[in-house]
Amino acid sequence: MHSFNIPAVGRDMVAPLQNRIDQKTKPLGALGQLETLALQLGAIQASLTPQLNKPHILVCAGDHGAAKAGVSAYPQDVTWQMVENFLAGGAAINVFARQHGLGLVVADAGVAHDFGVRDGLVSAKVAPGTANYLEGPAMTADQCSQAMEQGAAVVRRLAGEGCNVLGFGEMGIGNTASASLLTHCFTGLPLADVVGRGTGLDDAGLARKRGLLEQALNLWPERPTFSHLPCEGEAGRGRASCGEAAETGGDALSVLARFGGFEIAMMTGAMLAAAETGMVLLIDGFIVTSALLAAIAIAPTVRDYCVFSHCSDEAGHRLQLAHLKAQPLLQLGLRLGEGTGAALAWPLLVSACAFMKEMASFESAGVSEKAT
Amino acid sequence: MHSFNIPAVGRDMVAPLQNRIDQKTKPLGALGQLETLALQLGAIQASLTPQLNKPHILVCAGDHGAAKAGVSAYPQDVTWQMVENFLAGGAAINVFARQHGLGLVVADAGVAHDFGVRDGLVSAKVAPGTANYLEGPAMTADQCSQAMEQGAAVVRRLAGEGCNVLGFGEMGIGNTASASLLTHCFTGLPLADVVGRGTGLDDAGLARKRGLLEQALNLWPERPTFSHLPCEGEAGRGRASCGEAAETGGDALSVLARFGGFEIAMMTGAMLAAAETGMVLLIDGFIVTSALLAAIAIAPTVRDYCVFSHCSDEAGHRLQLAHLKAQPLLQLGLRLGEGTGAALAWPLLVSACAFMKEMASFESAGVSEKAT
Repeated sequence: MHSFNIPAVGRDMVAPLQNRIDQKTKPLGALGQLETLALQLGAIQASLTPQLNKPHILVCAGDHGAAKAGVSAYPQDVTWQMVENFLAGGAAINVFARQHGLGLVVADAGVAHDFGVRDGLVSAKVAPGTANYLEGPAMTADQCSQAMEQGAAVVRRLAGEGCNVLGFGEMGIGNTASASLLTHCFTGLPLADVVGRGTGLDDAGLARKRGLLEQALNLWPERPTFSHLPCEGEAGRGRASCGEAAETGGDALSVLARFGGFEIAMMTGAMLAAAETGMVLLIDGFIVTSALLAAIAIAPTVRDYCVFSHCSDEAGHRLQLAHLKAQPLLQLGLRLGEGTGAALAWPLLVSACAFMKEMASFESAGVSEKAT
Repeated sequence: MHSFNIPAVGRDMVAPLQNRIDQKTKPLGALGQLETLALQLGAIQASLTPQLNKPHILVCAGDHGAAKAGVSAYPQDVTWQMVENFLAGGAAINVFARQHGLGLVVADAGVAHDFGVRDGLVSAKVAPGTANYLEGPAMTADQCSQAMEQGAAVVRRLAGEGCNVLGFGEMGIGNTASASLLTHCFTGLPLADVVGRGTGLDDAGLARKRGLLEQALNLWPERPTFSHLPCEGEAGRGRASCGEAAETGGDALSVLARFGGFEIAMMTGAMLAAAETGMVLLIDGFIVTSALLAAIAIAPTVRDYCVFSHCSDEAGHRLQLAHLKAQPLLQLGLRLGEGTGAALAWPLLVSACAFMKEMASFESAGVSEKAT
């Protein structure tokens, strides 16, 4: 697989950015999290007036061998049916992407369905669904690299078109189960805590899902652990040398191949490539964040480029965010996937850039500063 | 003063709206608070596909006699200077209103400054600042009615132009102090709990502000109490008869006149008029919510029309929202005022309407429903 060279986001812009924010006509800190966001976007772009160009949402779809074992409330066919819904423009992500003028890229990373050649569908199918991790690895190492490379290829095309901000979304019946296994492996959080109801399992269904995922773990007793991993860009930067990261990368790939979906591996590859080109990464919910955990295990500095769009209602997402010391922009109890949280948070990124560029300073507006 | 006739929002649309929401191609409840919002907007408009037309933000500005006693970190001149900033397009609310295509109406409800006749400024000046409530009532009953009537007049003009959704914002050095007094009176919450740092008082400043506001209360021992008031549309509807509401209304006006700012009373009048015409009211932060508490004391059903845009970082706002059983859309630590929270939350209202109108149903998209 292509190796990724992701520079840490520099700290030298922080002071001038903070100064510019503080000179705007408002009490110090009064725009709250929007100020933190503006500072991050400015640091990523090394600019006092960051600009977001040609925003896109990449929605990766894939099927899961384990889905038929009963880890989801919906039948597996819903994956391809929803891809058709995306192509027809009728899903929630279509609605929100249209509202905000976001380009939507839908990719078949490995759906168990033959779509033929279709306008508007990126054909990136590694195989028609993963193997069942209740029996062995979900994919081979080659398949995992292939899925990641497909994601990277989409990103390189978008970057070539001038896109510098990318949101991530997914569709795949059974993929919260996969995300739970990955989250457990990459964070060390207890499995039971990061298994949730997905699309709407009842109590019995949830208990069954937990039991099956325990089985999947027990089938691989020699799996690597990552609890030592840096979980935040700033803190991690000093700790992981390139050599360590590369070594960890091999372990990360083995975990991703064992439990991942093709759509998850495709997002992981896309995230690494996006950070490499200096894009802003707009992270959606539980499954997207599990793809990010894999990306961070491979190249910790990818964390610096991530804006966390929302905290979803899926149980494990809050824990992932806490692990990443991430402060999400929205907390609306969403649990739909498709990148809907990323699309709904998008206008806040635009607002952060807009106030940096357009707001008057105390001096330019002739407004008195604080009396004290 | 004009009396307001605000019908409670009917419950008969709730079942058909919920049914439409549940038929959309997503797991039940997966759009979280956006679904609650869609349901409310549909109920207000008695429509399965609510539409928001000609959205505006009304920013009311006024000065406070108590400001010079030391209840704010900024000098009083900042009120008129910021009005100039609004007129020049350089304030945060200008930036966010432009971003979202929101009409911005700036009104001088009682700023201590002569603006002359100015393009883009609604001249609604009752007086150049209120009297000091540390010495007596901030305004006369007539002045209070006049400010409210000015707000209602703006709303009737906007309604005539086809506007059916109105956000509220304010500017007035010292107005968090006024809002704290009003909040205490209208909710029964302890004064100390609803006094905060405003634009950025330090610990000593905050202690001083608390002390001064205690004094202001003690000057009026015979003030009416409202802790019996219905605080949520649904619950209140059965309790307050028209006669009770009218009687309470007189008390409410006396409290508003005693402690209110002209900009707050203007917003109260605008809110009542807006609900009367069936508009959606987009409520901003602490000061706007204190104007709403006055409006609710006058006509409890105004609550039904309110969407709460955000929970601000000003101490008392969270308590106001809890009192109102209100679930805010954003929690970004904002504390700027000007209606900035309302403007930032606006795209979520658009999203709620968009998914109701545009999303496919399971049937229309040919997507399988839940297996169980």
